Amino acid sequence: MDELVALCKRRGFIFQSNEIYGGLQGLYDYGPLGVELKNNLKSSWWKSIVYERDDVEGLDTSILTHPDVLKYSGHQETFTDPLVDCKSCGLRFREDQIPDQCRGEELTEPREFNLMFQTNVGPVIDDSSIAYLRPETAQQIYINFKNVLDSTSRTLPFGIAQIGKSFRNEITPRNFIFRVREFEQMELEFFVLPGEDDKWHRTWVDNRIEWWVNQGIPKDKLQLLDVTGDDLAHYSKSTVDIMYQFPHGLEELEGIANRTDYDLGSHTKNQNDLNINASVMKNTDSNTRLAIQNENNEWIVPYVIEPSAGVDRGVLAIINEAFATENLENNKQRTVLKLKKHLSPIKAAIIPLKRNNQDQVNLAHNIKSSLQKYQIGRVVVENTGNIGKSYRKHDEIGTPISVTIDFDSIEKDTVTVRDRDSMKQEIISLDRIEKYFLEYYADI
Amino acid sequence: MDELVALCKRRGFIFQSNEIYGGLQGLYDYGPLGVELKNNLKSSWWKSIVYERDDVEGLDTSILTHPDVLKYSGHQETFTDPLVDCKSCGLRFREDQIPDQCRGEELTEPREFNLMFQTNVGPVIDDSSIAYLRPETAQQIYINFKNVLDSTSRTLPFGIAQIGKSFRNEITPRNFIFRVREFEQMELEFFVLPGEDDKWHRTWVDNRIEWWVNQGIPKDKLQLLDVTGDDLAHYSKSTVDIMYQFPHGLEELEGIANRTDYDLGSHTKNQNDLNINASVMKNTDSNTRLAIQNENNEWIVPYVIEPSAGVDRGVLAIINEAFATENLENNKQRTVLKLKKHLSPIKAAIIPLKRNNQDQVNLAHNIKSSLQKYQIGRVVVENTGNIGKSYRKHDEIGTPISVTIDFDSIEKDTVTVRDRDSMKQEIISLDRIEKYFLEYYADI
Repeated sequence: MDELVALCKRRGFIFQSNEIYGGLQGLYDYGPLGVELKNNLKSSWWKSIVYERDDVEGLDTSILTHPDVLKYSGHQETFTDPLVDCKSCGLRFREDQIPDQCRGEELTEPREFNLMFQTNVGPVIDDSSIAYLRPETAQQIYINFKNVLDSTSRTLPFGIAQIGKSFRNEITPRNFIFRVREFEQMELEFFVLPGEDDKWHRTWVDNRIEWWVNQGIPKDKLQLLDVTGDDLAHYSKSTVDIMYQFPHGLEELEGIANRTDYDLGSHTKNQNDLNINASVMKNTDSNTRLAIQNENNEWIVPYVIEPSAGVDRGVLAIINEAFATENLENNKQRTVLKLKKHLSPIKAAIIPLKRNNQDQVNLAHNIKSSLQKYQIGRVVVENTGNIGKSYRKHDEIGTPISVTIDFDSIEKDTVTVRDRDSMKQEIISLDRIEKYFLEYYADI
Repeated sequence: MDELVALCKRRGFIFQSNEIYGGLQGLYDYGPLGVELKNNLKSSWWKSIVYERDDVEGLDTSILTHPDVLKYSGHQETFTDPLVDCKSCGLRFREDQIPDQCRGEELTEPREFNLMFQTNVGPVIDDSSIAYLRPETAQQIYINFKNVLDSTSRTLPFGIAQIGKSFRNEITPRNFIFRVREFEQMELEFFVLPGEDDKWHRTWVDNRIEWWVNQGIPKDKLQLLDVTGDDLAHYSKSTVDIMYQFPHGLEELEGIANRTDYDLGSHTKNQNDLNINASVMKNTDSNTRLAIQNENNEWIVPYVIEPSAGVDRGVLAIINEAFATENLENNKQRTVLKLKKHLSPIKAAIIPLKRNNQDQVNLAHNIKSSLQKYQIGRVVVENTGNIGKSYRKHDEIGTPISVTIDFDSIEKDTVTVRDRDSMKQEIISLDRIEKYFLEYYADI
């Protein structure tokens, strides 16, 4: 893990947030390469969930959330950790994480501490103006159910997808970007007819495993965990976690829950007129019926299947899998990030052999422009004048192909294309480079 | 404006946030079409600023911000509005926005109210754990200056770009998505050698106007405002606002400021060892030198040119310009959203003439899949069985082309392509549809 964190900082993937003022624990910034990798991962999810299907709509909601949303979702009451204060040192800990040096000392009784970040909206700071930073993107999807229905005329089954930031005031953030206080989620709420929920739950577990494999996580590194007993949330009929062997241990990469009609049932008005199966809090504030009419004009509260994935822990798993140290023939080693090409931050590096050769440099920029226009991602000119160093750098940051411009490029209109993984070099004619690039990235 | 707001809700562009619980003022959600339009606008900016240039790096930082960042930036002290309380009705107003009915009543003396949202990070809620939601993305760019420099080996001039949410507790949010409490920014901080700042300032003003014109805002609807006098921020040497005639009046779409060395000078350690021109607060907390060495190994604190654009007000301006009601020959009218094609939420609608004709529906889905793979954006099958209604809908949401599948499609392998703006229809053979689509979107 330490090697990985060091690479992430050195190459501009991930930095400690607010570092120049000592940092804020559990917060990270994505640097020039990290932002591309993260955006590529999010695009891949959106493409798979929204674009390639015919039954999912997208959404992008506010982070600031009305307290009633989190009252009826149950977060205000149950989204808590038990904390104790050490009366000797004055510090506060989770009940199950008291450090050894405090164990002999006097501790307060545990008190429930809510993990939501709270703020106030508007000019008056009091209880009436409290709002929360959303602890998950899901709730804002449920409360927009009717808005999406009315503007799209959907029928069951259909889903609403959202990518965005969520916030949890973790007592002990840890393990780099795995458990953080500000993180990004990719959540799908897939609404189905009650009775079809078990089938759809299985379908989504299969779909999501396949997607992670396509992001470069080998199937044999993933395990399915059937969440049972106390670990199963009270609203969930069944939850399957996709577990991945992170550097710090086997942990959840994504959870796929059958949330029944708990969510829409919790947020709807006129609860008593609807056949809600889940045990929900009596809602006296909602002004909207969150249900859908079937062919017989009967109101149905759909069940929800929720595949919920973490962007940041996805990035961590992907970098961890891609990170390799290889022994080369000449007794040397190289570090290489074997990212799937659709995830690579840089799609091609164009490298003039001589940095002061204006013909080579100009040609490099022309090639960059011609490749950049295909909207496949970022293409850079690497004008260091040190070809070996440039290759090493682009191996380390996962650039799939490098294109070297040399004297022959000017005289014979050829360039050398080097493949990151095989390190094989191929001389191709200049007029083929666009086609080569397009075909290389055709199936991403 | 009312028509525009109604269209935005009806078609799923923009909804009032937290609406089922009465809403939260100054917050909006982007629906299925809004999220695509907004993402397309952000992609266009990123492509223009990061991908097409050779001198800009991207960044994506945390929203939660260390209080020292906003102390040294000046936000803690000066990012305020003067508020007065009406002693009779108990409500609080901005000093310049007291409603008529309170003007005869007793009012408190104005007090400065900070517009930043405040929260607490960690298990202890007291002054030591305060953090803010960033009021702009810019500060997090400055404090990452050295991280980006170290990981990319940049020399001046170079820029760092970021797109992301910012938060301002506006006393009176208004004018739909123009002045809101949670909004998205596209900010570039472009670092230049002192002395080259005026030249770069002019260059960026020109660049940014050109970009807005490419997004569909006619040049004659944009005005440049030289900010002067009290309106000019204390740190700014010169600021030019790009003003647009919004439905509610002429207002700022983007500001381009020459911020001198104020920002890096404010956040750097060892201020006295550096030749800082701006008047900055003495910094006793920063642990990092935010400067760059020139060829003579002298430390330079770069000047910053900042083009700062609002995503949401950009969306509003773009929809406003694209929105048109046209009189047709048959004495009818149509509403059409003449979005630039790279911004359109849906890139093509594939419409089977008969919804129950399985051959047509299957063919429509096959065509969707074949077009979807080019990563140009969302393609949908519009299976309503009402061709006229489908055309009207896709005119209204700005879909540039519709592809109709009819009996000839099955028997003669032809489809009908209809152009949104000209409403002209063209019959093309099925095997040409991919090429047609690719060429249509080739230059976006």
